[in-house]
Amino acid sequence: MPTHTSEKAILIISDGVGDRPIAALQGKTPLEAAKKPALNKLAKKGATGLLHILSPGIPPGSDTGHLSLFGYDPRDCYTGRGPFEALGAGLDLEPTDVAFRGNFATVNKAKDETFGVIDRRAGRNLPEGKQLANLINGLKVPNYPKIKVIVGHTVEHRCVVVLSGDGLSSAISDTDPHGHADSVLTSMPLDDTPEAKTTAQIVNELTREISRILTQSPVNAKRKKAGLLEANTVLLRGAGVLPEIPSLKEIYGISTACVAGGALYKGVARAVGMEVLTVPGATGSYDTNVEAKAKATANALKTHDFVFLHFKPTDSAAHDKDPQKKIAMIEKFDHMVDTLTGLIDMNHTHIAITGDHTTASTTGKHTGDPLPLLVVGPTIRDDEVSEFSERACAKGALGHILGMAVMPLLMNAIDRSPMYGA
Amino acid sequence: MPTHTSEKAILIISDGVGDRPIAALQGKTPLEAAKKPALNKLAKKGATGLLHILSPGIPPGSDTGHLSLFGYDPRDCYTGRGPFEALGAGLDLEPTDVAFRGNFATVNKAKDETFGVIDRRAGRNLPEGKQLANLINGLKVPNYPKIKVIVGHTVEHRCVVVLSGDGLSSAISDTDPHGHADSVLTSMPLDDTPEAKTTAQIVNELTREISRILTQSPVNAKRKKAGLLEANTVLLRGAGVLPEIPSLKEIYGISTACVAGGALYKGVARAVGMEVLTVPGATGSYDTNVEAKAKATANALKTHDFVFLHFKPTDSAAHDKDPQKKIAMIEKFDHMVDTLTGLIDMNHTHIAITGDHTTASTTGKHTGDPLPLLVVGPTIRDDEVSEFSERACAKGALGHILGMAVMPLLMNAIDRSPMYGA
Repeated sequence: MPTHTSEKAILIISDGVGDRPIAALQGKTPLEAAKKPALNKLAKKGATGLLHILSPGIPPGSDTGHLSLFGYDPRDCYTGRGPFEALGAGLDLEPTDVAFRGNFATVNKAKDETFGVIDRRAGRNLPEGKQLANLINGLKVPNYPKIKVIVGHTVEHRCVVVLSGDGLSSAISDTDPHGHADSVLTSMPLDDTPEAKTTAQIVNELTREISRILTQSPVNAKRKKAGLLEANTVLLRGAGVLPEIPSLKEIYGISTACVAGGALYKGVARAVGMEVLTVPGATGSYDTNVEAKAKATANALKTHDFVFLHFKPTDSAAHDKDPQKKIAMIEKFDHMVDTLTGLIDMNHTHIAITGDHTTASTTGKHTGDPLPLLVVGPTIRDDEVSEFSERACAKGALGHILGMAVMPLLMNAIDRSPMYGA
Repeated sequence: MPTHTSEKAILIISDGVGDRPIAALQGKTPLEAAKKPALNKLAKKGATGLLHILSPGIPPGSDTGHLSLFGYDPRDCYTGRGPFEALGAGLDLEPTDVAFRGNFATVNKAKDETFGVIDRRAGRNLPEGKQLANLINGLKVPNYPKIKVIVGHTVEHRCVVVLSGDGLSSAISDTDPHGHADSVLTSMPLDDTPEAKTTAQIVNELTREISRILTQSPVNAKRKKAGLLEANTVLLRGAGVLPEIPSLKEIYGISTACVAGGALYKGVARAVGMEVLTVPGATGSYDTNVEAKAKATANALKTHDFVFLHFKPTDSAAHDKDPQKKIAMIEKFDHMVDTLTGLIDMNHTHIAITGDHTTASTTGKHTGDPLPLLVVGPTIRDDEVSEFSERACAKGALGHILGMAVMPLLMNAIDRSPMYGA
């Protein structure tokens, strides 16, 4: 029987793994159609259920989905995606900072002084991203000299922007038109506070200043000459402040680590106090090296009580509306799980496997359909389900539970969930 | 596969359809004993579950039941049934109005100046109801001349009364003794606010004034002469204000319509922004024309994204403690569902079928037992349940969920449930 100190836990997320019946798969979901011997073996050994990440029928974002999976109620602590992207990009945040996701984009100045959006992604491939971010990092907003502006490049056309200073608010609207409008939007306050009003003004002034600097940059002159789209503004979205939440260590007394490719997942992991490990080959893309990730997870388990292992390609395939690709990625995920379970002591490890949301291969969008959940380990009462899939797990012994319950359930299995009461 | 704009949804409620094991039915429920091929066919095709309308063991009212089914938490927005009855009767309400259900009743003046109740319903059959309502509509409450009094007749002995003006509160008790007392009750404030105190005084004065006017009316002189009970007062109950809630259109961006017979259901539908359709033959009684209702629903679906279709007789039969009649009405409901599904494009429609509460044929009362729930449509992962009944649906893939989840679940199925997070 397990003793307190040596028991370990792993939470494995296959991003967007849930799906809907697909006509081309004779009504099966990609998960049902995939060959997944390792997952099925664990399902047979453990207990299964269905997971409503937020609540039935509510499509989760990637950020709110992972906050829930880590045991935090996004309705209490979530303001926007910006701070998680910023943390994931390696920036540090003060509780008073307001962080945004940014896109380098191509705009032209219309006669009415608004900016028309030519391409929200400045052609997407932007090798000069880091250079451009450096150009505007630390710039001064003319009428707000005390506000610090930090800009960090992430991948392709993407960046993060952080406003640092007193009296800021995240209750402001995006400047990014998201394809719903043709122009750069004016940021507006979303509540009646002077902080929201001021922050919206700062953002609008910042946007003009960024456009001014980028338009004059030799980088863009070069791109123009080469017939490429100029990256002459940054569209901002997802304003948020870092949630003030206790770390997993504070709640459960555990040491925690994260193995992930994508910046957002690393960011949410940092926000709950995980050590984010650098794993060469863990790209977050289809080519991600699952053997490297499995090995890194097994290694991390030697020095940490809990490891969060994230796998992105299942979601990407569904966003690409490619159920066959999703099947292939589920099979790649299965291989990762198989490799991992071969490397660890299954007699002293509990594993939970699920997704952060359903992504429908039909629409390419997040949906509110529930996810299969699987928990396996020496303390788990097994059930008769022997397949890891949406329909099979609906009959499992874990029942239908909320995303926020996964972490307490896993921590309870390794006797780290604090008693409530006496 | 579904595209965003053409997908439709229908919520069909068989009022009070759930029941308990009935000895005369060899322990079956009326739903289990009924022949219901259309419902069973849909159960086989779709997914099923059990629905706790409010929470396990809490008997819902018809008003709170429907608010929950439309996705609103009655604990946040419900004050009383009055405003829904008023809306259903076609009256319009301001957010500051206090609305009541009223009964024309027969009282006699006792020596102590209280009014003894002879019949809470003035004989129930009251052809002069509209005439009597007109007599007291617009009357002035002597000490509160600024308060406007609106009275509308509905059916039989029933009416709605609305107080309009500043400084009113719904936190007052009923004047209707509900069979628990022999006299008209004095309305009392239910909280410490001056508004509640004033409104209770207004209601008591209004009751005396109504009695004065009705007692002198030629209508009652005629009834007395004919040996009928005089309708010489109005008993008030269910004081409430209209909830300040966003419409379904505001939440989901959908156009919505209601096909119902009973005033209450139309009223709740209006409160959440539905267009209430007039369907000749939709009476809300045993004789309701289900083919007309099915056709009206199918037609409404051509111009609306969502239709709420309500069927009352299952509840009425249970209130009459007549399980055989309830079986017959379930079979009538099944015929309505069969007619409807023959008229619509099932490849582009999602349907949810359930009840608003269980009504026990044994006691004739609402109970907190859960309801069978069935959701069918192209995005739904089916399960192995092939019968629409309480015991069968307990095993379904939708699990056991709350009434408030039905609408997000249905909206998620047609990709109209907004994502929370990014």
